[in-house]
Amino acid sequence: METLEAIKKRTSLKEHLSTRDVEREKIVKILEATSLAPSAMNKQPWRFIVVQGKKNVEDVVTKAFWETNQVVKKAPVLILVFVNIKENTFPDGKTFCLTDAGLAVENLLLAATDLGLVTHPMTAVSGDELKKILSIPDEMDFVIATPLAYPAEGSYEKAAQERLSQRTRKELKEMVYMNAWGKPF
Amino acid sequence: METLEAIKKRTSLKEHLSTRDVEREKIVKILEATSLAPSAMNKQPWRFIVVQGKKNVEDVVTKAFWETNQVVKKAPVLILVFVNIKENTFPDGKTFCLTDAGLAVENLLLAATDLGLVTHPMTAVSGDELKKILSIPDEMDFVIATPLAYPAEGSYEKAAQERLSQRTRKELKEMVYMNAWGKPF
Repeated sequence: METLEAIKKRTSLKEHLSTRDVEREKIVKILEATSLAPSAMNKQPWRFIVVQGKKNVEDVVTKAFWETNQVVKKAPVLILVFVNIKENTFPDGKTFCLTDAGLAVENLLLAATDLGLVTHPMTAVSGDELKKILSIPDEMDFVIATPLAYPAEGSYEKAAQERLSQRTRKELKEMVYMNAWGKPF
Repeated sequence: METLEAIKKRTSLKEHLSTRDVEREKIVKILEATSLAPSAMNKQPWRFIVVQGKKNVEDVVTKAFWETNQVVKKAPVLILVFVNIKENTFPDGKTFCLTDAGLAVENLLLAATDLGLVTHPMTAVSGDELKKILSIPDEMDFVIATPLAYPAEGSYEKAAQERLSQRTRKELKEMVYMNAWGKPF
């Protein structure tokens, strides 16, 4: 799929997950794409846990995901993203690792879209519960989770159609200025 | 360009900027791609200042960019990214806006790559100086900056070739676990 098309078609589709398993080869491709994002000082601070298998996914979702996200219990794969904020924070309090994780996760979402798979980035998840269930060191911080699945409707386009038609985004004039703050672009 | 190709070819090319101006139409395409990223609760917390014009770019780079980034003084366009961390932080201290900005910026970088333009995300920039020069409200936080330019070598491929051949990334086994922390993927 063309890059700008993938950017336009990527949308959050937790209601459209097939239970069909996702091939390891595709998960690898997606994670490799993720690793190619830039990061401050090339630190690559992102870490991932792939959760695969009906029982494993159900256990993690039931215990750690909020009520609104219980629908992803049927996903064949979850990808959970972590960084170590403390280790990646400068003495002046600045940290780049959360932004770096965002850069990497967008690659993940776009690569999945390109491969015809559906995703749905989620933050309404208990990092503390994940730590307990998955033996995650206390110093790691949960950033975001997404299911990874084939679309229930058989094609990405069909699965995404309705949601894309309802998409709401700010206009450029609400978020872009020219040469100084407040000056119209 | 195919999505996975753009993800692979996107690299940081501050040494390869042409002074040729970038058409407004392309800047708009890139910013629209940026706006299509997901964000926590669809808050779209990202804000952009486009700096264009030789004098404007030189002024901003000279005053606010660190020594190592002075080379981007020749760029025809800079894009500066901000969020309001305070406004987007929950009572428990969690904030999603830095990750959201990362999601949007990766779309920006990939859309530029797709259009044959070079970028270079930079954090070695003084947010305080930017605030002074560009009348940015004190509550806004600088996240990242990038030049946006045609490649000095005439084609993106030529500009990127050497740098891509030197790319260093962690192997998947250094950053991905399976079903629990520390378990090989």
